[in-house]
Amino acid sequence: MRKNLLSPSLLAADFSRLAEDIRNVEEAGAQYLHLDVMDGAFVPSISFGMPVIQSLRKNSNMTFDVHLMIEDPDRYLDEFAAIGADILTVHAEACTHLDRTIQKIHQLGKKAGVALNPATPLSVIEWVLPEVDMVLLMSVNPGFGGQKYIPYVTDKIRALRAMVDGRGLETDIEVDGGVSLANVSSVLEAGANVMVAGSAVFRGDAAENVKAFLEKLS
Amino acid sequence: MRKNLLSPSLLAADFSRLAEDIRNVEEAGAQYLHLDVMDGAFVPSISFGMPVIQSLRKNSNMTFDVHLMIEDPDRYLDEFAAIGADILTVHAEACTHLDRTIQKIHQLGKKAGVALNPATPLSVIEWVLPEVDMVLLMSVNPGFGGQKYIPYVTDKIRALRAMVDGRGLETDIEVDGGVSLANVSSVLEAGANVMVAGSAVFRGDAAENVKAFLEKLS
Amino acid sequence: MRKNLLSPSLLAADFSRLAEDIRNVEEAGAQYLHLDVMDGAFVPSISFGMPVIQSLRKNSNMTFDVHLMIEDPDRYLDEFAAIGADILTVHAEACTHLDRTIQKIHQLGKKAGVALNPATPLSVIEWVLPEVDMVLLMSVNPGFGGQKYIPYVTDKIRALRAMVDGRGLETDIEVDGGVSLANVSSVLEAGANVMVAGSAVFRGDAAENVKAFLEKLS
Amino acid sequence: MRKNLLSPSLLAADFSRLAEDIRNVEEAGAQYLHLDVMDGAFVPSISFGMPVIQSLRKNSNMTFDVHLMIEDPDRYLDEFAAIGADILTVHAEACTHLDRTIQKIHQLGKKAGVALNPATPLSVIEWVLPEVDMVLLMSVNPGFGGQKYIPYVTDKIRALRAMVDGRGLETDIEVDGGVSLANVSSVLEAGANVMVAGSAVFRGDAAENVKAFLEKLS
Amino acid sequence: MRKNLLSPSLLAADFSRLAEDIRNVEEAGAQYLHLDVMDGAFVPSISFGMPVIQSLRKNSNMTFDVHLMIEDPDRYLDEFAAIGADILTVHAEACTHLDRTIQKIHQLGKKAGVALNPATPLSVIEWVLPEVDMVLLMSVNPGFGGQKYIPYVTDKIRALRAMVDGRGLETDIEVDGGVSLANVSSVLEAGANVMVAGSAVFRGDAAENVKAFLEKLS
Amino acid sequence: MRKNLLSPSLLAADFSRLAEDIRNVEEAGAQYLHLDVMDGAFVPSISFGMPVIQSLRKNSNMTFDVHLMIEDPDRYLDEFAAIGADILTVHAEACTHLDRTIQKIHQLGKKAGVALNPATPLSVIEWVLPEVDMVLLMSVNPGFGGQKYIPYVTDKIRALRAMVDGRGLETDIEVDGGVSLANVSSVLEAGANVMVAGSAVFRGDAAENVKAFLEKLS
Repeated sequence: MRKNLLSPSLLAADFSRLAEDIRNVEEAGAQYLHLDVMDGAFVPSISFGMPVIQSLRKNSNMTFDVHLMIEDPDRYLDEFAAIGADILTVHAEACTHLDRTIQKIHQLGKKAGVALNPATPLSVIEWVLPEVDMVLLMSVNPGFGGQKYIPYVTDKIRALRAMVDGRGLETDIEVDGGVSLANVSSVLEAGANVMVAGSAVFRGDAAENVKAFLEKLS
Repeated sequence: MRKNLLSPSLLAADFSRLAEDIRNVEEAGAQYLHLDVMDGAFVPSISFGMPVIQSLRKNSNMTFDVHLMIEDPDRYLDEFAAIGADILTVHAEACTHLDRTIQKIHQLGKKAGVALNPATPLSVIEWVLPEVDMVLLMSVNPGFGGQKYIPYVTDKIRALRAMVDGRGLETDIEVDGGVSLANVSSVLEAGANVMVAGSAVFRGDAAENVKAFLEKLS
Repeated sequence: MRKNLLSPSLLAADFSRLAEDIRNVEEAGAQYLHLDVMDGAFVPSISFGMPVIQSLRKNSNMTFDVHLMIEDPDRYLDEFAAIGADILTVHAEACTHLDRTIQKIHQLGKKAGVALNPATPLSVIEWVLPEVDMVLLMSVNPGFGGQKYIPYVTDKIRALRAMVDGRGLETDIEVDGGVSLANVSSVLEAGANVMVAGSAVFRGDAAENVKAFLEKLS
Repeated sequence: MRKNLLSPSLLAADFSRLAEDIRNVEEAGAQYLHLDVMDGAFVPSISFGMPVIQSLRKNSNMTFDVHLMIEDPDRYLDEFAAIGADILTVHAEACTHLDRTIQKIHQLGKKAGVALNPATPLSVIEWVLPEVDMVLLMSVNPGFGGQKYIPYVTDKIRALRAMVDGRGLETDIEVDGGVSLANVSSVLEAGANVMVAGSAVFRGDAAENVKAFLEKLS
Repeated sequence: MRKNLLSPSLLAADFSRLAEDIRNVEEAGAQYLHLDVMDGAFVPSISFGMPVIQSLRKNSNMTFDVHLMIEDPDRYLDEFAAIGADILTVHAEACTHLDRTIQKIHQLGKKAGVALNPATPLSVIEWVLPEVDMVLLMSVNPGFGGQKYIPYVTDKIRALRAMVDGRGLETDIEVDGGVSLANVSSVLEAGANVMVAGSAVFRGDAAENVKAFLEKLS
Repeated sequence: MRKNLLSPSLLAADFSRLAEDIRNVEEAGAQYLHLDVMDGAFVPSISFGMPVIQSLRKNSNMTFDVHLMIEDPDRYLDEFAAIGADILTVHAEACTHLDRTIQKIHQLGKKAGVALNPATPLSVIEWVLPEVDMVLLMSVNPGFGGQKYIPYVTDKIRALRAMVDGRGLETDIEVDGGVSLANVSSVLEAGANVMVAGSAVFRGDAAENVKAFLEKLS
């Protein structure tokens, strides 16, 4: 049976005291930490990269769920693996040789995820799906925190869940963007099992928010 | 008379507790905070960007000395100005229309710096020099902290100082890369007046290091 | 019931006397004016851009149907909206974040179109289709006027019409490339309702040609 | 009835004595010579280009099956046609205007092929398929010789064969990557008819290897 | 003795009635017509390209002074030559192989110009200067009409004039940006001999403005 | 005292029998073998890359003088070093971080060269010159063999020789493009000491040509 997981997004944390913010969500039971790396080219903002992740690794045992919103991610896979990523998720739109990128992540001993922008069809992963550990469906256009969940993505989750189950796979389905306590149950019901939540976790009492999410996910 | 200033580089701080690291150097008297934004394209690493600077702004009154090691910096000048940059330094190698970029920074009410890689000739700034508040001479190849100072840059500082003085200008000369207590006096003597220091500040007792630097600079 | 519309393409007009050429087609009843912006990068030619459209806006009340054959159109949406575009159509092949681009056009108060090259599959718009006001199917490879209609596009129009109707949408279907009085009826019958015509309008008597087209479309 | 063909890949030959290596495979009966042009940008290696192909043309009457693993291949189609290519195969992932590229190849009097990376869906060729002489399915990620055949590509061959036959077309299906005497029969059975083989031909006795392949293909 | 020339910039004309605007300046005695081609990539705007120039060619006998503010201009030199350019000016900042580009323009039977942005040092043309028919010094940052003349460019004109005269050359020196009746004499005095003027010509009575300029230039 | 050397360019050899062509020039006394790697992006042609050089390495003991006419050469330095390059020459125009690239070549245990296009000013190497083993002055625009020597490059050689000698350096000066028996003495006299020769060596009797060159160089 698949496991439901919470992946609080660092993007909504306070970057002046990350150790403390992370400890809060980890102690409250969050299993993953979602790390949104943005390069200002694939997406229209620069968030953070190697030195931030490296500093955090010594403060946390959560699964580091690194989401590479960058062009040509192959350039940096070795480095992200070396500094502590557990899952490396690349965007299909940024990879000309997607199968190679997935193979490379596996050779580094990491889990491989593939992210899709809201408009991107599921056909771009139809052949590599069995090679992938997780598919990340974006439910906002990546680049910024605090955006609203795009409603049509719920149908896309359902379609992906049907693909995964229909082929007898165990692929995780992660959803990122605008997920809150108000809509997480419908996202779950549609078939996703890894929930990224940013402001819904870090705005207010992060520990309480994590617990509330985990209850919904249990 | 020109003022000598210290600009500790965030790149060498502990990203899990930046508020604390910054408070230390600010209380010890550092005037500037050097913020190295890297995009993984102009330089071969991604450091940090908007959300990190924005989080720090509320924790510090130091002059935010933002060094944009990014391609086509014009795209993000508005945003960096809005989140609290005081000085915006762009690389000459990344700007096709350098005069426009400088004008834009000034229109945003910020000080404009131009950075030059070690190999880049001073001729690239000969016409815009009077428009520029600060020239940043790289004394390592940008992209990583902890590199060794390149000796020939000392002559380059001298040549730039001669240009600045010879034209009766007040342009600041900043040096970034491998500056330490051991070599800061010779960098100063060559004509630089703003010293970026990363590991030389944050490795060990940051407050003590800042004080030792400031003594050399006084 | 859907409305059939004619969108004469400026590309075939005489650029030395555009006001006159436009007045002719407007007075003859053409509802749209198709403005083919080419940047020499997305397509292998440079046609015209902002200053031309701005000059024409004061001469015409037609719907300005701006077709952006340019890379990364997000850079210029604000500007095209400000100078008088009514519909902004972007190429799916040029947009990594297609949903965001469409949202941005709507926020600017304009109608959003998505164009597809002849070889591009309809799957690239399957998720955003309900968000789009118009889909433009290219029936030649964009970049030049005066090319021949590609026959297989007729089947593609049919497939798109089936998608649109099957989902209960009102999306307009525009066809651009090689449409003439000789083939417009079959294009219409296949399910398109907005016809771009360049040389078929401006070669010869433009007013007469417009009237002949409008008769076929009525 | 379709013809099965062998296309030994030059990439596995000895570049210090190509005339001899080619003569061996030609005399042994290989019909095609597979010429893998790599530019270091579309794929992460630079193999060879114009001067190599031009030198070989005078040494061989085999069909020159030129596989362009390069960005924006339109730039060089004229030149490759002029120096002796018989088939020009471009990657769908490298062509924004795929229909135009195919038309251009035909205008040059050459056969047009379209190559797809392992992860690329067949939908990218659904509209142009009738215009294409050959579809090349990559069974490794392009860029290097000596890789292992990716098993899921066998299903992709079957799916493409069904598309081709279902539409009553005669399109050749070529497979490139890890094809050997051990697996060529299953590749053939899945529906491919043009076999690229590199090390499986040139490692050991090339003439014997060619004959063994041809026997499997007969 | 060198000849002083006026090159009214089309960018400031009314694009809805170009034939008329051009006739006015031509009949008033303007020798050149400055055609600012912008691609939205080298500069942050798209102005006009081939179809506009082609339409105008049949309306005018002025020297078509085509200023290519585009990336990689080599791609389009043949085409601009074919549609009626007399002078083809490329930006040094856009040309990796500047000598080749100049040779190509000459092979097309056209005059070759090299343009420099305000910040660009004269050293970029030191070796090719004898091969060049005209150097265009930008006195604003290219991309838009109606900007103010940058004062330091006057010194740059002087420096270039000294280079040209010192080497016994006849190279024309053109200045583009913010040139008006108020400052044209000082630009002339500094050593330029071809004056681009946009709004200073087309705002108000273009014929009168041209005559006033020509008087200053005589 | 500096040594004069001949570096026959593989570009002019017969690619169908390279072992033989190379043996001829090596036995005749040529010390270097010039290997022109072109990627179709930095220069408008694709020549050859890794597999060709690797095949030749086992056939020759000449110094492999690898001239990388490619964009962003840092990507491939490790690989070219591993397959047998002795000198790695990069183009200054292709390197944003030229000092880093030179350091990297030295760390790989190879000699570092910097190449300059004909129009490129010597100022681009003024700071790194002492770090460089060889400067390659292009005397044609790179991309093709068989072009004519550009006369102004002779003055550029003289200027570089003055820089090198004036700073007490031992840097080699290589010249590439149109060097023949007819002009090699003047190139030598101007101050170059490494001569690339392509068709002047391989057209006709290569061994005789090498000997004739070596006599001129002695």
